Amino acid sequence: MDLNADLGEGFGIWRLGDDEALLELVTSANVACGFHGGDPSTMRRVCSAAAERGVAIGAQVGYRDLAGFGRRHIAYAFEELRDEITYQLGALEAFCRPYRTRVRYLKPHGALYHAAACQESQAAAVVAAISDYDSDLPVLCPPGSVLAQLATGAGLRVVAEGFADRGYLANGALVPRSAPGALVTDPQEIAERAVRMATERAVTAVDGSVVPCPVESICLHGDTPGAVQAAALVRAALIDAGVPLRPFSTS
Amino acid sequence: MDLNADLGEGFGIWRLGDDEALLELVTSANVACGFHGGDPSTMRRVCSAAAERGVAIGAQVGYRDLAGFGRRHIAYAFEELRDEITYQLGALEAFCRPYRTRVRYLKPHGALYHAAACQESQAAAVVAAISDYDSDLPVLCPPGSVLAQLATGAGLRVVAEGFADRGYLANGALVPRSAPGALVTDPQEIAERAVRMATERAVTAVDGSVVPCPVESICLHGDTPGAVQAAALVRAALIDAGVPLRPFSTS
Amino acid sequence: MDLNADLGEGFGIWRLGDDEALLELVTSANVACGFHGGDPSTMRRVCSAAAERGVAIGAQVGYRDLAGFGRRHIAYAFEELRDEITYQLGALEAFCRPYRTRVRYLKPHGALYHAAACQESQAAAVVAAISDYDSDLPVLCPPGSVLAQLATGAGLRVVAEGFADRGYLANGALVPRSAPGALVTDPQEIAERAVRMATERAVTAVDGSVVPCPVESICLHGDTPGAVQAAALVRAALIDAGVPLRPFSTS
Amino acid sequence: MDLNADLGEGFGIWRLGDDEALLELVTSANVACGFHGGDPSTMRRVCSAAAERGVAIGAQVGYRDLAGFGRRHIAYAFEELRDEITYQLGALEAFCRPYRTRVRYLKPHGALYHAAACQESQAAAVVAAISDYDSDLPVLCPPGSVLAQLATGAGLRVVAEGFADRGYLANGALVPRSAPGALVTDPQEIAERAVRMATERAVTAVDGSVVPCPVESICLHGDTPGAVQAAALVRAALIDAGVPLRPFSTS
Repeated sequence: MDLNADLGEGFGIWRLGDDEALLELVTSANVACGFHGGDPSTMRRVCSAAAERGVAIGAQVGYRDLAGFGRRHIAYAFEELRDEITYQLGALEAFCRPYRTRVRYLKPHGALYHAAACQESQAAAVVAAISDYDSDLPVLCPPGSVLAQLATGAGLRVVAEGFADRGYLANGALVPRSAPGALVTDPQEIAERAVRMATERAVTAVDGSVVPCPVESICLHGDTPGAVQAAALVRAALIDAGVPLRPFSTS
Repeated sequence: MDLNADLGEGFGIWRLGDDEALLELVTSANVACGFHGGDPSTMRRVCSAAAERGVAIGAQVGYRDLAGFGRRHIAYAFEELRDEITYQLGALEAFCRPYRTRVRYLKPHGALYHAAACQESQAAAVVAAISDYDSDLPVLCPPGSVLAQLATGAGLRVVAEGFADRGYLANGALVPRSAPGALVTDPQEIAERAVRMATERAVTAVDGSVVPCPVESICLHGDTPGAVQAAALVRAALIDAGVPLRPFSTS
Repeated sequence: MDLNADLGEGFGIWRLGDDEALLELVTSANVACGFHGGDPSTMRRVCSAAAERGVAIGAQVGYRDLAGFGRRHIAYAFEELRDEITYQLGALEAFCRPYRTRVRYLKPHGALYHAAACQESQAAAVVAAISDYDSDLPVLCPPGSVLAQLATGAGLRVVAEGFADRGYLANGALVPRSAPGALVTDPQEIAERAVRMATERAVTAVDGSVVPCPVESICLHGDTPGAVQAAALVRAALIDAGVPLRPFSTS
Repeated sequence: MDLNADLGEGFGIWRLGDDEALLELVTSANVACGFHGGDPSTMRRVCSAAAERGVAIGAQVGYRDLAGFGRRHIAYAFEELRDEITYQLGALEAFCRPYRTRVRYLKPHGALYHAAACQESQAAAVVAAISDYDSDLPVLCPPGSVLAQLATGAGLRVVAEGFADRGYLANGALVPRSAPGALVTDPQEIAERAVRMATERAVTAVDGSVVPCPVESICLHGDTPGAVQAAALVRAALIDAGVPLRPFSTS
């Protein structure tokens, strides 16, 4: 199983999350590329630290929206969005070079993550950017999403990710954030769900049923109080359960 | 002889200079990388058109200052500046990939061009960014500048450029912009100076003396009225004089 | 009748449209406030020139999106959008002060113009920003739009604007840009339509019927080739027809 | 005596310092205006909270440099800098209006603070912006600085500020940050120095001499660990010493 988390999401003087702590826990680092967060020196620092620890570096690409942290939907034209993603991919790659590594995958951030999951035009822009840049680059996204479908259709490798701290519906989809059961907050329960995802490729839905959850990576969060502790518990529980942790991109 | 010019310096809806016309005249395109000008879709368009014409693509890197077009000096710390340049290098490289080419050289823009020519700290940041990224990448800059010295010391290839439309002092330096004779405005005279640079590696200084001008590239300007016509005249005059025109980066 | 146009939409080194020419033609200047275009020095220049000519200054507020020129819809939260508009209003006001004038009205730009015309949340943010700032400030927008309704409901003055160079449907709405007849391109016809709007408060729809067009201002465009000439023709035709031209904000 | 501190210096999702705690301690709030930090919604929040507590609102204007937090010197032309300051003044004023207050003073931030203290061109731009906007607006700056001199010469009110947590030379200037004694770190000592500044208008210099320190405001810092506690101690000590605390702008 792979563990991924968002890293390098500060900007200039501002910090967000605990990059150092998370780097000790994850196997894949979604590194912000400067459009929704992240700045060149932060990108270098995270790439250096990730490379040192054998953590895979992924391009966490987002909208050009520092003020909104990439969380507001923007109605990009296809070409504009494709080119903004290409730009971010290349920028991150440049910080991998000095540490003799490279960008191993792409994960859309925030509103782009959600748009690409359900809108054909934005999903197609993500796929086009990857295909143009390096068609061996996997895309990390929700299973069954529009992005997953288009990427598969374009011959790209799709890596499905799950959320041990989010509720699931009986149909395998996430519980909407506004509905009861959207968030799992008990660290112990989060860890148990992660183990089940890893060992049974399944998750207990809000209605109690056990549904398939065919994911290759589990997303950890590090930007809320207690999040790093919960993430550490997930990692420890997986190791206790004998689950090998390694980047999906080299498996 | 190589002919270089700044290209892709628009941003979003705004245009600057006549990219299409200049691409027919130059052998090397200094492509703006998004910090002082240039946006991802413009970068892609220029890279595509340059690759099609066999024009070499160079990274025209600048300060993060759209509002000032990179023309205001910014007192960057060494690491910040190095990393901002690395970021831009990588971003441009990403737009070379789909057109089966790559970044062939780097040229600093505006206030960075001037700072790197005379300030050790900023010159060192440029050199460090190139060395980290690809130590085979030449840097295009004024002969004898601090940047040229540091780059040579670091084992980088330095390509000296000259300005056929600028006055020179008897010591080989440019006439300061505020002094008489700083600018040569007669297109015919500009063309003649370009030919002398190319055939004799020399230029007539403001005091009438002929001084060495050991340049491998001549910089053309395209952002003022009549500039494209003057550039076309330079190109035609060089061809008439039997000077082969080709990118320095492949010579 | 009032004539309005977008002004000051350059940014830094980049220019857009012919501000000087338009200032001789309009009675109300929609001045860009720095978020989609416009920079402080441009704002000052336009405010100074407008004040000198007795042209009313309006805040042309837009999304924070220089790269997209405010033309891409952004899914702002209500408070964020309200506050972004407040910020722009105040910034423009500061450039009116030295010229002993003030912001006379507000007109949304680009994607915000369209969103506020049909989306309650964005229209409400515009209304809230104006109400907080100065409830005597009129809003310039399409008649019958959601923004017009909410603004009227909040006790704000609504000034309806018409487009002499756009086709109208028989129900008084604009022909969608993708449909035939969306644009009127013949300068003479544009001028005639403007005169009819001013003298009969009516327009000839695409089906030939004459429909009411109860507007207090006509929007002129200045950013396309020939646009300034067409605008000049509109102005001349209105004067010929004896229509007094003056800012709505002082009528 | 007045107590001032920098507030509202977050941007978007990112936070900096403890605005809520500082608002309980200061009498004047230097509110960031969006160029080096601060965003419209943060500005509104801080203005609302300050107005509620009777804390005076000042415009903390800075360079257009979010990435560098306004701490890197930028070689602005006079007009550009003047206009950038005007823009920020107006933007902040807009957020005072709904809370029935107004901008009471201006304080330059970061690299602009330092440049205006010693460079005539940048100091003159600050003075010109204030004079144009509201010549009754005081400027908060170091006593004896170039800015203080030019502002006084232009008929502006200058309010001198002191730093209880910085070392002073025998000539009344601050100990340079690189020299020994630049920082006072003991909270108790900081509080004592503040009391002496308030009651004797004097400070103990690094050489042990007591030198005049004719300040009307003491600057508190809130962005480092322990800073808020130290600030609280300063406030308590001043109150214990019977020093009335109130905004200079209404004294």
